[in-house]
Amino acid sequence: MKIAISGKGGAGKSTVAANLLYCCKARHLPTFAIDADPDANLGLILGLDPEKLALLPPLSTLQEVIAGKHAGGGAFVDLNPSVEDILEDYVLQDGSLRFLKMGGIKGGGTACYCKENAFLNAILTSVLLDRPESVVLDMSAGIEHLTRGTARGVELMLVVVEPTRAGITTALAVDQLAADIELPRVAFIGNKIRSVADQRYLYSSLPRERILGMLPFSETVLEKARQVGRSGFQEMDLMVGIEGIYQQIGGGG
Amino acid sequence: MKIAISGKGGAGKSTVAANLLYCCKARHLPTFAIDADPDANLGLILGLDPEKLALLPPLSTLQEVIAGKHAGGGAFVDLNPSVEDILEDYVLQDGSLRFLKMGGIKGGGTACYCKENAFLNAILTSVLLDRPESVVLDMSAGIEHLTRGTARGVELMLVVVEPTRAGITTALAVDQLAADIELPRVAFIGNKIRSVADQRYLYSSLPRERILGMLPFSETVLEKARQVGRSGFQEMDLMVGIEGIYQQIGGGG
Repeated sequence: MKIAISGKGGAGKSTVAANLLYCCKARHLPTFAIDADPDANLGLILGLDPEKLALLPPLSTLQEVIAGKHAGGGAFVDLNPSVEDILEDYVLQDGSLRFLKMGGIKGGGTACYCKENAFLNAILTSVLLDRPESVVLDMSAGIEHLTRGTARGVELMLVVVEPTRAGITTALAVDQLAADIELPRVAFIGNKIRSVADQRYLYSSLPRERILGMLPFSETVLEKARQVGRSGFQEMDLMVGIEGIYQQIGGGG
Repeated sequence: MKIAISGKGGAGKSTVAANLLYCCKARHLPTFAIDADPDANLGLILGLDPEKLALLPPLSTLQEVIAGKHAGGGAFVDLNPSVEDILEDYVLQDGSLRFLKMGGIKGGGTACYCKENAFLNAILTSVLLDRPESVVLDMSAGIEHLTRGTARGVELMLVVVEPTRAGITTALAVDQLAADIELPRVAFIGNKIRSVADQRYLYSSLPRERILGMLPFSETVLEKARQVGRSGFQEMDLMVGIEGIYQQIGGGG
């Protein structure tokens, strides 16, 4: 199961990602949990130790280490055993989950990321196309880390949508961008649904046949989002909906 | 008044920006409203015509036009009268407001933006340092469009923060990035406040003396966010708080 999750900032991508990862973990399925949105906090929502997360180096800093090991390796990265040794420092393990983060929020005047992006693309290629583990990729609405090549490795892109005009505009833009790189399957999940009107609004604004389900607005998710080291996942409010979605996307088990 | 607004995706940056712009418009203050977050919809929240917005070309597509006019102009852009003629096609005027958008969400595999970024930096430099108009800049948490040079032109960066652990983590990261480029003043606004506990949480988690105010969670803002062509601004729920902030940041009038 190789899934990418996208949508507008604040729509609940990380919450959906964390809940799908919980489904994987509960089944002891070896899975990469990849935080590819610099403005996300998948690790916190997964309930990983905040101090360990703060110390975890992003993959964008790994390039020089690998370059040293594979002189002249260029942008191609093969996560073979010798690289895995190094990679361990960039992974937080939690049961069958292996958490990685791609990079941090970008600071002032740091306009050029060409080299860094090529490197991160190469890592994603390896994880999506070469590795047997499942992958849940928490992305921003910008899906620039995916290419026509890596898109073949993504079985499904889930676009998380709040019932707002801006949420829908972003979701449709992401859908178009995914089509541009021929991503095989894009589906939508409504989130933070507070009423039947919210649901109707989404059904009438998005390709209806590709809406996988709707998740309720949850006070308990909000409450947990305030607390250190307590995750917003494994929430009963959400788990019923998420489990259904997990089954629909072929998780099974 | 030259203000940049940042914070985590979904925190309400565009709502705060639109409300501050309303304060400017009500005073007939000539103001650039700049949507610099590819994942934002400032124009929709300002209540601008959705069809006109969809047709409005982003500034990132302006480069070749200007290059044609100023052969060999490089990355320096001076928004002088001859360029302003061209710029008109990229502006939606609404009373004293001039709305511009910098660029769209980034698609798959489009890894290199060096040239585009340099160009957008140059436009921001001109707007922030050379022009007399006020500026309200709606940015992402990544503040890569600002440089040590343009930061001098930003009188204040407002960081909008939801009372969640992830919101605070992002806000503190933005604060650090702003300090790195020596941005003269960074302040915080709490948003979507639903209880006294929410307020206390923010006061205890952020530099207290730099919190300008707190805005309530607003059902009417949510409601309007669903409707086409109806703006989420000029909301009584928010206007009291926003007007106070507008006065504090030196808007006056």
